[in-house]
Amino acid sequence: MPKNAFYAQSGGVTAVINASACGVIETARKHPDKIANVYAGRNGIIGALTEELIDTSQESDEAIAALRHTPSGAFGSCRYKLKGLEKNRAEYERLIEVFKAHDIGYFFYNGGGDSADTCHKVSQLSETLGFPIQAIHVPKTVDNDLPITDNCPGFGSVAKYIAVSSREASFDVRSMAKTSTKVFVIEVMGRHAGWIAAAGGLASDAETEIPIVILFPEVEFNQERFLSQVKAKVEEYEYCTIVVSEGTHWPDGRFLAEAGTRDAFGHAQLGGAAPVVANMIKDALGYKFHWAVADYLQRAARHLASKTDVEQAYAMGKAAVEFAVEGENAIMPAVIRTSNDPYKWEVGKAPLSEVANVEKMMPKEFITEDGFGITDACRQYLVPLIQGEDYPPYRNGMPDYVTLKNVAVPKKLNTAFEI
Amino acid sequence: MPKNAFYAQSGGVTAVINASACGVIETARKHPDKIANVYAGRNGIIGALTEELIDTSQESDEAIAALRHTPSGAFGSCRYKLKGLEKNRAEYERLIEVFKAHDIGYFFYNGGGDSADTCHKVSQLSETLGFPIQAIHVPKTVDNDLPITDNCPGFGSVAKYIAVSSREASFDVRSMAKTSTKVFVIEVMGRHAGWIAAAGGLASDAETEIPIVILFPEVEFNQERFLSQVKAKVEEYEYCTIVVSEGTHWPDGRFLAEAGTRDAFGHAQLGGAAPVVANMIKDALGYKFHWAVADYLQRAARHLASKTDVEQAYAMGKAAVEFAVEGENAIMPAVIRTSNDPYKWEVGKAPLSEVANVEKMMPKEFITEDGFGITDACRQYLVPLIQGEDYPPYRNGMPDYVTLKNVAVPKKLNTAFEI
Repeated sequence: MPKNAFYAQSGGVTAVINASACGVIETARKHPDKIANVYAGRNGIIGALTEELIDTSQESDEAIAALRHTPSGAFGSCRYKLKGLEKNRAEYERLIEVFKAHDIGYFFYNGGGDSADTCHKVSQLSETLGFPIQAIHVPKTVDNDLPITDNCPGFGSVAKYIAVSSREASFDVRSMAKTSTKVFVIEVMGRHAGWIAAAGGLASDAETEIPIVILFPEVEFNQERFLSQVKAKVEEYEYCTIVVSEGTHWPDGRFLAEAGTRDAFGHAQLGGAAPVVANMIKDALGYKFHWAVADYLQRAARHLASKTDVEQAYAMGKAAVEFAVEGENAIMPAVIRTSNDPYKWEVGKAPLSEVANVEKMMPKEFITEDGFGITDACRQYLVPLIQGEDYPPYRNGMPDYVTLKNVAVPKKLNTAFEI
Repeated sequence: MPKNAFYAQSGGVTAVINASACGVIETARKHPDKIANVYAGRNGIIGALTEELIDTSQESDEAIAALRHTPSGAFGSCRYKLKGLEKNRAEYERLIEVFKAHDIGYFFYNGGGDSADTCHKVSQLSETLGFPIQAIHVPKTVDNDLPITDNCPGFGSVAKYIAVSSREASFDVRSMAKTSTKVFVIEVMGRHAGWIAAAGGLASDAETEIPIVILFPEVEFNQERFLSQVKAKVEEYEYCTIVVSEGTHWPDGRFLAEAGTRDAFGHAQLGGAAPVVANMIKDALGYKFHWAVADYLQRAARHLASKTDVEQAYAMGKAAVEFAVEGENAIMPAVIRTSNDPYKWEVGKAPLSEVANVEKMMPKEFITEDGFGITDACRQYLVPLIQGEDYPPYRNGMPDYVTLKNVAVPKKLNTAFEI
């Protein structure tokens, strides 16, 4: 008898997490002998705990196919980490109660490092609590910090967005530099790892040279050296673009964004790293500046997704289901790079025991010795990930993103659960 | 005998001002009997004053064609306004000196309101200083505030970028709202007019409803009413997106961005309107927020240009040259809307005397009565301007934007001119 599958989106969403959802659901629909229906968690794992399940069989094939080109989390996501089994047995027992009630035998969890850990714990439920379930983690994170997989779905599209946006804004400031703006600062995501900041370096290449200074979270901020870099670039090129990671910090660990500013009412004001850097340059060097903070725009920019990223996101969802119907448990499909030039990749398989709680940092050899740029090795790694465009369809001038019906599965337990 | 033409880009650049340059140069190349060569000003009008002219004949047809898909100002722009003839006769005499030396009979000036005024003054030089020249203004401004023309090239692409980005980020925050971010704030350009902010309203439409609150520069900021709007939206939809114009101001005229913040060194810190609004919501309502400042990204985003905008930008450049070879002077080609549904437009002709120093504000009937949204009339005006996509070619994952050789025309005067 086929079992139902549970699928949930976890943590910060991306431009392509729905492409993974599309891969999961479309593939599950091809295996009715093994998977009866896919129930999605409304707002991620919370939906499992509160028995708020979404019946994806109520969505047409067209709607599911449209997930491939729709950014964000179509079923809702959440920031909610299950504690360890020993600390919060009640949550795992509740999961089992809900899964039993809805005949769920597969658990697909689409997220980053924390989610991999949760997924790993769920994969052990048959051992630890006697409930048979196959748990497969579907990798997703713009932070690109999951181990084993060469890269994480979601990252390639952010990388492309930041590279393209930095190039475009650099062309703009180059135009204006004679009498006006000389320095443009763009703040990007990445509190712990500089992957996204590194992607800003792709704005400049052999054919299109742009003076770029990158501030990585991996490199302690040195104001004097930074300012002299900027000065040198402006003197040589008349302008300069700065890509600053939100995680850029002083030697004592304080983020640049925590500048200790107060608003008119005396409230502490988090102003972002970009304005801090921009004002610092203005004060020391007198250059006129502009700054941007991309924030959600970067991770939601499905309009500029990397085709490679979309394909990999879909492939990870598809592979997760295929692994599940083959009887696998406690694994994560992974992107394995088999060749750099031409770029080739295939789907691999990572044991969750080796994924959970391991954070992949950017290799030191990806950052230039001066600490402000990316090396050729970094470029070789990044460039394949931004290849190809995969435009969404447009209707009336706007991208035609789908909003699902998200019909609730009738509750069978009707017992409340406090989260 | 054919004369040479002078072309210059002025003020803040856009995603499509080079499409106008493309229209000017390609069309001039079709009229060798009237126009010998197009000399571009290096960094705008400053290039004319300092005799730094760029020989566009050194650029291949392919390079000029690539201007159509390249953002920013390929020859450099400047923020430099010529004073009135009575106040600064020297500048006009210098222009004539340079134009005479280089046999220039046509003056194409690509800019906004200030530039139209300069262009108008140049168009009068034969009357005022006895120098025969035909001056045609090519409209350009993301501010969309030129009169007579239905809209300004550059605006449609910013509008599309802000509408699409606001929709994408709204999908993101909608996904996260259950346990995390409930409010997303995006700051957009437009210090005096709310055209760009209004475009944020297009993120929501009949098929894709999104709760959006817009803060216009035309509407005095009322904190209490604003917060109650946001609260109502979050209570109804669980989330809310706020589009705030950089020009949003308090009743006393102070911009929201001037929050009186000081950095650690006591320097006044310009932090943008978005973080001010976001922190205000956090303090009053406790909602978790994210904010973005699009800044140059919005006006440089050629990767997401409106096809309508690109076509109109090109058409304005083309028409400027055609008008010139027909003997016109002191005019500006304009976009004339002849039908809304289906949208149709044609090239019109505006006398510079009626363009210079006239600022077109957004009609009151484009803003909803509560002051936080756009009306159907506004939507009817805006929607045609974002129609169609016009993607640049990509090479190796990045848009293939052209950087011209910008070969200098040998100086004939070699006299210095202080600007």
